[in-house]
Amino acid sequence: VPAATTPIEFLRTPVTEPGRTLLDLIEARLPDIAATAAANDRHSTFPFDVFSSFMASGVMGATVPAELGGLGVTRLHDVATALLAVATADASTALALHMQFSRGLTLSYEWRHGAPQARDLAEKLLRRMAEGKAAVCGAVKDHPAAATELSPDGAGGWVLAGRKTLVSMAPIGTHFVVHAWTRAGSGAPVLAAAMVPRETPGVSVLDTWRGLGMRASGTFDIAFDQCPLPAENVLIRDTVGKRDDSVLAGQTVSSITMLGIYVGIAQAARDATIESIVERPSAPPAAVRTLAVEIDASLYALRAAAGAALANADAYSADLSGDPSERGRRMMVPFQHAKLVVNRLARTIVDDCMTTTGSRSYSIDHVLSRLYRDVRAGEFMQPFTYVDGTEFLSSQLFGLGRDNNYMSVRARTAAERVVG
Amino acid sequence: VPAATTPIEFLRTPVTEPGRTLLDLIEARLPDIAATAAANDRHSTFPFDVFSSFMASGVMGATVPAELGGLGVTRLHDVATALLAVATADASTALALHMQFSRGLTLSYEWRHGAPQARDLAEKLLRRMAEGKAAVCGAVKDHPAAATELSPDGAGGWVLAGRKTLVSMAPIGTHFVVHAWTRAGSGAPVLAAAMVPRETPGVSVLDTWRGLGMRASGTFDIAFDQCPLPAENVLIRDTVGKRDDSVLAGQTVSSITMLGIYVGIAQAARDATIESIVERPSAPPAAVRTLAVEIDASLYALRAAAGAALANADAYSADLSGDPSERGRRMMVPFQHAKLVVNRLARTIVDDCMTTTGSRSYSIDHVLSRLYRDVRAGEFMQPFTYVDGTEFLSSQLFGLGRDNNYMSVRARTAAERVVG
Amino acid sequence: VPAATTPIEFLRTPVTEPGRTLLDLIEARLPDIAATAAANDRHSTFPFDVFSSFMASGVMGATVPAELGGLGVTRLHDVATALLAVATADASTALALHMQFSRGLTLSYEWRHGAPQARDLAEKLLRRMAEGKAAVCGAVKDHPAAATELSPDGAGGWVLAGRKTLVSMAPIGTHFVVHAWTRAGSGAPVLAAAMVPRETPGVSVLDTWRGLGMRASGTFDIAFDQCPLPAENVLIRDTVGKRDDSVLAGQTVSSITMLGIYVGIAQAARDATIESIVERPSAPPAAVRTLAVEIDASLYALRAAAGAALANADAYSADLSGDPSERGRRMMVPFQHAKLVVNRLARTIVDDCMTTTGSRSYSIDHVLSRLYRDVRAGEFMQPFTYVDGTEFLSSQLFGLGRDNNYMSVRARTAAERVVG
Amino acid sequence: VPAATTPIEFLRTPVTEPGRTLLDLIEARLPDIAATAAANDRHSTFPFDVFSSFMASGVMGATVPAELGGLGVTRLHDVATALLAVATADASTALALHMQFSRGLTLSYEWRHGAPQARDLAEKLLRRMAEGKAAVCGAVKDHPAAATELSPDGAGGWVLAGRKTLVSMAPIGTHFVVHAWTRAGSGAPVLAAAMVPRETPGVSVLDTWRGLGMRASGTFDIAFDQCPLPAENVLIRDTVGKRDDSVLAGQTVSSITMLGIYVGIAQAARDATIESIVERPSAPPAAVRTLAVEIDASLYALRAAAGAALANADAYSADLSGDPSERGRRMMVPFQHAKLVVNRLARTIVDDCMTTTGSRSYSIDHVLSRLYRDVRAGEFMQPFTYVDGTEFLSSQLFGLGRDNNYMSVRARTAAERVVG
Repeated sequence: VPAATTPIEFLRTPVTEPGRTLLDLIEARLPDIAATAAANDRHSTFPFDVFSSFMASGVMGATVPAELGGLGVTRLHDVATALLAVATADASTALALHMQFSRGLTLSYEWRHGAPQARDLAEKLLRRMAEGKAAVCGAVKDHPAAATELSPDGAGGWVLAGRKTLVSMAPIGTHFVVHAWTRAGSGAPVLAAAMVPRETPGVSVLDTWRGLGMRASGTFDIAFDQCPLPAENVLIRDTVGKRDDSVLAGQTVSSITMLGIYVGIAQAARDATIESIVERPSAPPAAVRTLAVEIDASLYALRAAAGAALANADAYSADLSGDPSERGRRMMVPFQHAKLVVNRLARTIVDDCMTTTGSRSYSIDHVLSRLYRDVRAGEFMQPFTYVDGTEFLSSQLFGLGRDNNYMSVRARTAAERVVG
Repeated sequence: VPAATTPIEFLRTPVTEPGRTLLDLIEARLPDIAATAAANDRHSTFPFDVFSSFMASGVMGATVPAELGGLGVTRLHDVATALLAVATADASTALALHMQFSRGLTLSYEWRHGAPQARDLAEKLLRRMAEGKAAVCGAVKDHPAAATELSPDGAGGWVLAGRKTLVSMAPIGTHFVVHAWTRAGSGAPVLAAAMVPRETPGVSVLDTWRGLGMRASGTFDIAFDQCPLPAENVLIRDTVGKRDDSVLAGQTVSSITMLGIYVGIAQAARDATIESIVERPSAPPAAVRTLAVEIDASLYALRAAAGAALANADAYSADLSGDPSERGRRMMVPFQHAKLVVNRLARTIVDDCMTTTGSRSYSIDHVLSRLYRDVRAGEFMQPFTYVDGTEFLSSQLFGLGRDNNYMSVRARTAAERVVG
Repeated sequence: VPAATTPIEFLRTPVTEPGRTLLDLIEARLPDIAATAAANDRHSTFPFDVFSSFMASGVMGATVPAELGGLGVTRLHDVATALLAVATADASTALALHMQFSRGLTLSYEWRHGAPQARDLAEKLLRRMAEGKAAVCGAVKDHPAAATELSPDGAGGWVLAGRKTLVSMAPIGTHFVVHAWTRAGSGAPVLAAAMVPRETPGVSVLDTWRGLGMRASGTFDIAFDQCPLPAENVLIRDTVGKRDDSVLAGQTVSSITMLGIYVGIAQAARDATIESIVERPSAPPAAVRTLAVEIDASLYALRAAAGAALANADAYSADLSGDPSERGRRMMVPFQHAKLVVNRLARTIVDDCMTTTGSRSYSIDHVLSRLYRDVRAGEFMQPFTYVDGTEFLSSQLFGLGRDNNYMSVRARTAAERVVG
Repeated sequence: VPAATTPIEFLRTPVTEPGRTLLDLIEARLPDIAATAAANDRHSTFPFDVFSSFMASGVMGATVPAELGGLGVTRLHDVATALLAVATADASTALALHMQFSRGLTLSYEWRHGAPQARDLAEKLLRRMAEGKAAVCGAVKDHPAAATELSPDGAGGWVLAGRKTLVSMAPIGTHFVVHAWTRAGSGAPVLAAAMVPRETPGVSVLDTWRGLGMRASGTFDIAFDQCPLPAENVLIRDTVGKRDDSVLAGQTVSSITMLGIYVGIAQAARDATIESIVERPSAPPAAVRTLAVEIDASLYALRAAAGAALANADAYSADLSGDPSERGRRMMVPFQHAKLVVNRLARTIVDDCMTTTGSRSYSIDHVLSRLYRDVRAGEFMQPFTYVDGTEFLSSQLFGLGRDNNYMSVRARTAAERVVG
């Protein structure tokens, strides 16, 4: 089969063997995931059993390098394809699972390209993930009430204080990778990442999730009350406010596979709708025929846009030869174009599906009423929201200077509040 | 002020004195309604206290003729204006209140223009409504599992059996106006309306509401297990399948004021959004400025379209001089055009408001997350859904024959199932 | 008939007697206008015969007060209704006619409320318009190559130099009302309006129109080469850069009736489309039924929005009692909301009509191919374009200071270029 | 570079060497093509010089197999990429050139897989195309006034009578491949393809093009007045009315590369717009920033959808192993999804570009005013229009039986008119 045929399988067929293995493992669990999705959504219950099976089967180590015992899935396309499959059964489960896959990818990068300290830390964690013993949550967004800050403890270690919000998969999280800032030394505020085991004194996992949708994703707050951390658990990053577009590469890798989740939601909505029409005895009326075609055409565009951005990110992810800042922009710009398209079209598709299906879809017992709430989360996933994405993309287009690192921007805001 | 200035006040200022009185009574209660809206939505609790106050203040008799003790609001525009105001505080309350207003309007028509039996029945009920002692629910839609049928009891009275669904305001309903069909005599199935007091033997009010939104509207099922009814409580209507467009007039009057509810939802979403932007210290970014203008322009179009259709219905409602079928179509066609516009734009506005506001709007504690669910109900309100409305309007446009009475269509389906 | 019924006749039935007279005069000419529209568009020919008949019948004096011999149409709604009717036959003719109607309205305001010099000048011109002897063009927009400036001639009179562009109806224009600026005295640049008879030495009317559509509208450049003007022909206005929102009232009156032109284009497209479908022997396919309903619903919203804004402007136009700046904003803001809606929906309607009609509509001999070009002009009509309208409306919304007088903004740019 | 990176180059970089050669040849001519595009559009002049250079350089033999002297471009992706490049300079030229490329592709299929008669005919023509001596136009659509029919001449040959319309590249066409029907024998009407040299007696090439856009494409009528044809020039195809979805494969190959033309139009509009903004001295206002991002995101989706459908068609085109009807549907369905997306988004992009650019884009001297007319042609390209595409796709979706061969449907209509 010639190479150019690949895209017809965008987000349907994995492009690597490890990706195929992962999808097989996941497909075996889809009936179970689907069976409890409605009830978990109703009661905002995390799917513990599903994740136990993921721990046991190796799914939780999917993006861990094979050398460290994982499945060795490296292609973002294949990760997104797996998340898409999960999302057709339950988007909340997919969102939580994304946490683990994303950490696997970024820790693998540290393990391959990082400084010695980062490599050691990454290897330890990755091995535990592969063994099904570590569930690693990224903790990026500060709670509005508290910036998260690292301070030297005076003995070579650190103390972490603050509170993070919107941490998915928190109910089973064993480790938290916490983005914080520190005023170490006399210089400017500096970004840092801290690896915080759940059992660290002062860590509280707070069941605070009040989302309109994605209700079974275990998206909690984590509070840090003067948590002691050894030196090796803290990685110092960039100076706050340094305009360094190279970080856009890592941010793309961290987040782009979430596109698969929203494609999965749209696909699930479409399938439920077409099935229900086919079952009816009478011929479909004019508006149903027209809407069904609109839905399928939108789904085609959404899949193609997401697939293209994922393939683009895979290509640049594998190629470290060029200018790092340029590489960052070349990954982030198409990701943001695709994100804008996917978020909008996925919403349009779910909405059109409700129109096509009719009033029964308004019941909380109908799958479309869950998808209608879940799909709205897409636009708020970082980076970027529509408003911030428009700032970023139009600045790129018109050459307007700007700090594109949203973590730095947030840290600066926090730092300014604290430092004054 | 010249006459043509009226429209600038579309759905803001009542055009009659009784309308003004009603709006004043309602505005006095808005803080209370708003205060409990979130909690009622969360727990799907009917706002009993609000309706108690409506009973006491005369609001429940708003559309009862003054001669019978009511406020005497006759203009659909003014009724919609009142519902709009309620909906800015809580759409569920408005939807339930619409039930009572709508019954007042249609019973008033019976009282003025009906046959003697209908006038007596209507007068009795209207007087009780004006006294704050009757809450009258229309029960139109059959439960999928059971057509609702009237049978002669052999002694001049009737027996009602079946089940209705989607009956709003049911928790406090004292009377149900039930649309049913009967095979009275040897002839074709005939439509009928039965007035069923809640305390009639065999009546069960079932708390079955599982809506995505409008959760405090008390939209329940009512089951009828061989309920005995005296002859005077049953009004015989048209033969099932008779194509009589004159019924479109009454259906327009019954339902068109609900447009006010969806305008109110859009207005509430817009106000919450603009307020939150104004409060921010920094200048609004490009996308926020652009979206805010789109929201306001859409709201302008939505208000104008709803207002024009209401004014049109008011004009034809007051004019019984022409051909009744033509009058029916001239009321229903603009109503459906406006309904299509209002449903779509109200959804667009709420969606744009979430985009403008950002991730905080995704919390179940943010008013936009309730409006996002409530607004989606609009398209499913009868008559018509988008799919059925497209059938109706395109048939009108291209001269395709069709039974436009959706109650008749449903009854025929039910009758065919039963009669075989 | 109750007052609230008026809106159902939005832009269909004049609300005043003079408006009725005008519409009758126009409807008598519609077949002639329609008969030559295609050929005039093809060859970019101005419809001289049509305007001769307008001269003879009194149409050219429609908005001149009855006291001065005109028809005395004062309502913007009725002017727009007349323009709408013309536009269903030919939008170019309507655009040219708008020039005359607009000047009649603004000169009438000068005659009623202006200073003595302005009243005298206005009366003279209005009487000639009523007699069918004056065609008065506003000349607002400077040619990119030349700002238009007035200089004192040292003997109490003025000299005008510069070039204006986009002056519709120029082929028959007898007088040009030219917006210019002057550095009279030592002070800041000041806006002025000059009344320039066509036969003034130095005036050249240049057939420069290269528009995509509106090709028969005679939208030319006018060049002024040191034209001498007597003192009484020049009215001094505001200082350039003075932020005075009261001018928004006059700008609304000048331009809002053009909304009728774009409603007329949409209506013509819709009528041609539905007629062609009805003529076909086979039943309309699904997409045609769905699109036809979308077209009619959009047309309903467009008519309602335009009608509401016109009625609003009529109300404030007649009421000079309040704060002039507030009055300006209350006229302009709804106008801009409606303009945004009308421009977008009119384009959508024409586009949907082409889709519904099919490939025959792509021929230059099909009316839709002319409407497709004509309708695109709407967005560029002043004030405002979409981009500028978003600046204006969002500034209003968020309290951002801004000079809302687009003539002042332009003059300042020009002045800065010249003065340095 | 890993395989999955291909899509990032969708429609930018050819995927084969011959495709690369073709693009290089074309890019060398782009300045010339661009230089005359506006004048050719104005005067509806065919670009003879451009095609002379294409003849000389081998471009006219691009899709002829290398064995027969052509460039041997076989991938639809690469053909579309070449057409896209041409369309960024002039869409009319691209549309005409598509004729030749398309015939090369379908004749190559005949040469490889056809019966001996077809292979001989194809080889002869392909060799002439490669030599730059044949310009071969498909003539598919009957003029409304005349079905095109083949009749046996009684001596083993044929006589062709009728008239075709919408034949692009006709000014230089040396051969016409004419789709006709015949009542050969006593049986049902049968489809046939006739190869008609231009010098055949009775052939008239009529300069009838009256398109809104694509004005330099030489899209003429060809009339056939009892044209004598030898037996070897006529290929008998399917029985009219036979439902054979295998023909969808050839129809996809014939037409899908036109997607490149509309991507090219959108790209040209976008580039002209962004350039003009960047040149302005002031910072882009809010709506410009927002619209620019919308344009780029739409362009991303449009490119991805077109690219995916082309890659899909390439894969199935190269694989003749499965069920031919299934293959036909698997090529046509994604093509139609992409066509719907491309047609709509390309129009949206050009429209947004005009809004962003402002009133200068309304001049016939501005490139956007040409693109606005050209882009509207896309929806009317066969197969299918939006209306027919909705019939086709919804029938597929809901299992509604239907003759999907649009040539057969048209022939049947024609045959019924004639046969009665």
